Amino acid sequence: MSEKALQYLTDNRNQLLTKLNEFLSIPSVSTDSVHKEDVRKAASFLEEYLTEIGFKNTQQIETQKHPIVYAEYMEAGPEAPTVLLYGHYDVQPVDPIELWESDPFKPEIRDGRLYARGSSDDKGQVFMHLAVFEALMKTTGKLPLNVKVCLEGEEEIGSENLYSMLQEKKELFEADFAVISDSGMVAKNQPTILYGLKGFTGIEITVTGPDHDLHSGMYGGAVRNPIMALSHILSSMKNKEEVVTVEGFYDGVEDLTEEERELIEQVPGEDFVKATGIPETVSEKGYSPKEHTMARPTFEVNGIYGGYQGEGTKTIIPTSATAKITCRLVPGQDPVDIQQALEAHVKKVAPKGVTVEVKKEKLSAKAYKVEPNHPLIEKAAKSYTKAFGKETVYVRMGGSIPVVEWIEDIYQMPIVLLGFGTPDDRLHSPNESFPLDSFDKGMETLVYYWNEVNKL
Amino acid sequence: MSEKALQYLTDNRNQLLTKLNEFLSIPSVSTDSVHKEDVRKAASFLEEYLTEIGFKNTQQIETQKHPIVYAEYMEAGPEAPTVLLYGHYDVQPVDPIELWESDPFKPEIRDGRLYARGSSDDKGQVFMHLAVFEALMKTTGKLPLNVKVCLEGEEEIGSENLYSMLQEKKELFEADFAVISDSGMVAKNQPTILYGLKGFTGIEITVTGPDHDLHSGMYGGAVRNPIMALSHILSSMKNKEEVVTVEGFYDGVEDLTEEERELIEQVPGEDFVKATGIPETVSEKGYSPKEHTMARPTFEVNGIYGGYQGEGTKTIIPTSATAKITCRLVPGQDPVDIQQALEAHVKKVAPKGVTVEVKKEKLSAKAYKVEPNHPLIEKAAKSYTKAFGKETVYVRMGGSIPVVEWIEDIYQMPIVLLGFGTPDDRLHSPNESFPLDSFDKGMETLVYYWNEVNKL
Repeated sequence: MSEKALQYLTDNRNQLLTKLNEFLSIPSVSTDSVHKEDVRKAASFLEEYLTEIGFKNTQQIETQKHPIVYAEYMEAGPEAPTVLLYGHYDVQPVDPIELWESDPFKPEIRDGRLYARGSSDDKGQVFMHLAVFEALMKTTGKLPLNVKVCLEGEEEIGSENLYSMLQEKKELFEADFAVISDSGMVAKNQPTILYGLKGFTGIEITVTGPDHDLHSGMYGGAVRNPIMALSHILSSMKNKEEVVTVEGFYDGVEDLTEEERELIEQVPGEDFVKATGIPETVSEKGYSPKEHTMARPTFEVNGIYGGYQGEGTKTIIPTSATAKITCRLVPGQDPVDIQQALEAHVKKVAPKGVTVEVKKEKLSAKAYKVEPNHPLIEKAAKSYTKAFGKETVYVRMGGSIPVVEWIEDIYQMPIVLLGFGTPDDRLHSPNESFPLDSFDKGMETLVYYWNEVNKL
Repeated sequence: MSEKALQYLTDNRNQLLTKLNEFLSIPSVSTDSVHKEDVRKAASFLEEYLTEIGFKNTQQIETQKHPIVYAEYMEAGPEAPTVLLYGHYDVQPVDPIELWESDPFKPEIRDGRLYARGSSDDKGQVFMHLAVFEALMKTTGKLPLNVKVCLEGEEEIGSENLYSMLQEKKELFEADFAVISDSGMVAKNQPTILYGLKGFTGIEITVTGPDHDLHSGMYGGAVRNPIMALSHILSSMKNKEEVVTVEGFYDGVEDLTEEERELIEQVPGEDFVKATGIPETVSEKGYSPKEHTMARPTFEVNGIYGGYQGEGTKTIIPTSATAKITCRLVPGQDPVDIQQALEAHVKKVAPKGVTVEVKKEKLSAKAYKVEPNHPLIEKAAKSYTKAFGKETVYVRMGGSIPVVEWIEDIYQMPIVLLGFGTPDDRLHSPNESFPLDSFDKGMETLVYYWNEVNKL
């Protein structure tokens, strides 16, 4: 039945792309309340499409913010396995908008890539699944397994309401295994199995000094500068050798084995310098950039602000300064322990003359790791290789997908990460895009995979 | 002739306050091009008022940005001294506007204070001079000395065009001495002679890493974080003991003598904690807060920005981070040398993996110091004491007035700083205000002073 479905995808490519463009044109930016209705519009688009394909019990599950789209196809019968398919239809903000070469919400094809916010993360990948289900239904009248679809609208804001929904509606989402397509390949056309993901946690540090901005000539010399105090705090948390110097940060982290270092070495690495425009790479002392990004914890200041940001000078001692920090964690690190370690460090090094407040990021997740030789994983590798014509590599990656931890935590079901993104997709940045040939080969992979896992 | 003028000021107090309010209502924010016409409106207000009083040759001298208002009264004759009166009619921006209790450009009296942007710095003080000239002219038909008025509209943006104008029109501005009222008293109703001012210089540091914001999960571990790099640079420039750790920064700075420390000790100090709301003061190791603010150089980060500043988290490695730095200098420090020392330090400590750019603040000034026993200074002290009923104290202050250095540099004339501001005026901050009794006693001081210096 694969051949017919593949033929359908080829014959209907233009119509499918038009439909995808319609989906990508909806500015479903979950973080910005201005786009609340757009997020709902994207949910409705999915609800309609799923109904059209033949899914049943299609619905928008209301949460405190954006709805979860649910649908199911259970007609493969009790003998066939049931998969829980997770994806998200919300997208990152587009700022700085002036750096986009085309409107982020008017999809445009240039040099074989589809440019639009969400084209890769994650609307494009969600759409591929639906298109494959459409192809299978139209050509064979059925799907090779039972499918439960769970598409959320809050992934880019930390999946605020998903955990409680997964708990509350445990029976609804119950399945034999889960598939998530919200990740990427290590290189374009290089089939990649993600067998490890990093965990995630964060804090926000605010240093407050005077209760109003002060004239630096009148008070400079008597008052601690909050920006300077914050700089002292931050620079004490990670040294110039990229080693996190917060006590307890590496507790429980197992060092990389020689085998793992070799596995990482074999992965075709991205050219970090070329992809990012940096003068040279830096990484944790004792680890290569590839080892650090894939398998070692990281500590990043995502944003900082304080005082005067306009043109020219304003000779003030500002009232406060704030830094936003997130960490990517590896197995052995507990997010709550890490937050406590970070907070304890900040309080310890905070200089006198200012008050320092630490706000803990509510959402956090433990790292995830599965056995690369699980049958569901082996089937995935085989499907990838068949579609892309290349051996599959096995990698751990630096990204965090909280839902992975949650599904594992609540359902204890195996999770397969089928990602199709490429390193040049510019996720979360201006000019996000997705290669059209990855779109085609990714759908081909899915057709093979559903027919393969059916046999398990 | 003092009595009549003083009586006039008392009798016409309400009209004068109404006129001052009209002046303060003009939002002459020089840094913001939106207010270009408002700045000119304030200049025209002054031009008209000076003409009304009886000044001659009244004009707006055009510059590349905002005009300088010039006027002269030369009818006291060649025997009488000529004073060059300098002030400025532009004001600081008002942000953050939400912290103002009343509209910054709708003057309002609360608890004996006049609240408005510019009420103290420097429109209020400029207006006091004009009101005194009006009083003298209306009651005696003349002024006791020749007066040249030079009021600029670019002080808050570094007096960009003043230096070249002072050079170009040397003959026009030539005088026997200069008076500047753009400073304050050490305490309300405490007559204060400023015999030393700090110099000023600044740099802006921009650290650039990747050419676009990166997903921290994909690149964290391979890429230097620009905010962290900037924090390392900043924290290496001043230590937690408030000592500037830039090589060469203190070269040429003479240590405080015991006499000077005693002089500073005698000055009634401001309660820094109460005035600013900080938990406790901090100052350079080995110096008290009063010593540091008055007589030791300072280093302040005035603003910082980079990466995500919105609500919640955005897990990026930002493309760049910027810090704005200004220093207040003391005698013996050359602003150009200091800028070079700062730049050399930044380049030396800049970590690999990022590029670091240092932009040098164009405007800078050397520190200023005069002999406290100069006759013009002694007359000022006497006038202050007569008006305020209290002995005058002699202080050095942390502020910088570039025009002081320039007038000294170009004209070599003595400069008298007659300031009337108070420590609670909140210059450059929300809720700037000026006490009405300082307004009255300040004008009284000026009436005495002009009649005193006439006798020199």
